[in-house]
Amino acid sequence: MLLRIDHVGIACHDLAATISFYESVFELTVASREIHEDQGVREAMLRVCDGPVGASWIQLLEPLHADTPVGKFLARRGQGLHHVGYGVTNITAALEAIGASGVRLIDQRPRHGSMGASIAFLHPADVGGVLTELVQAPQP
Amino acid sequence: MLLRIDHVGIACHDLAATISFYESVFELTVASREIHEDQGVREAMLRVCDGPVGASWIQLLEPLHADTPVGKFLARRGQGLHHVGYGVTNITAALEAIGASGVRLIDQRPRHGSMGASIAFLHPADVGGVLTELVQAPQP
Repeated sequence: MLLRIDHVGIACHDLAATISFYESVFELTVASREIHEDQGVREAMLRVCDGPVGASWIQLLEPLHADTPVGKFLARRGQGLHHVGYGVTNITAALEAIGASGVRLIDQRPRHGSMGASIAFLHPADVGGVLTELVQAPQP
Repeated sequence: MLLRIDHVGIACHDLAATISFYESVFELTVASREIHEDQGVREAMLRVCDGPVGASWIQLLEPLHADTPVGKFLARRGQGLHHVGYGVTNITAALEAIGASGVRLIDQRPRHGSMGASIAFLHPADVGGVLTELVQAPQP
């Protein structure tokens, strides 16, 4: 079902400073910067690698306001790992199978994510405390 | 410098139950089970994918005792994402470069990790709250 670790999502207070850090220390480059008003985040995708089953990324997330999921996460837990995203071939089929196993779905249907992907989140309380995202990459 | 997302490390209270969950819901299989007395953990590696620059894994971690780093993490934050590991070609060179950038190294020199890898951790306070591990896979 899972093709790859698509990305790790990292919550930060200052996106520009955190991008600079990952660029200078880990020699990564930003492939995409987006603002998702619906998720309340400003984000950047830094490519770690490409592969036959798709690329892997570090996703840096800065909240647009304190009263957003990432803003509340920062207030509660501080900066750090926020979620993990796994690549899947067919997100609709994966959601159906995972939902049928009893895991609650935050997103019943896929929605638009970074760089044209279809994404959906699973409820962390049903995934051992891990906010887990499914990612179906856009058709090339 | 970074080849791939080698693994995400996930802290759990009950390794056997968490393995069963990942096997049944995400259709993963366990490639390795190890006990690392020095790290105070019992762990399992579940393969997500293989690739030209190495495999990616989910590492499930159960503390051997409450008074261990993962035990204290669970007491403080509960189950969930614990760290991320990135593959590197030459861990000694990577540690030297990262240390020279001002990031504190938890491990000044590589030590033995899962499945014969050489690993080293970077101080999360210097990596935006992310406990970050470097992983050099063993020679095939």
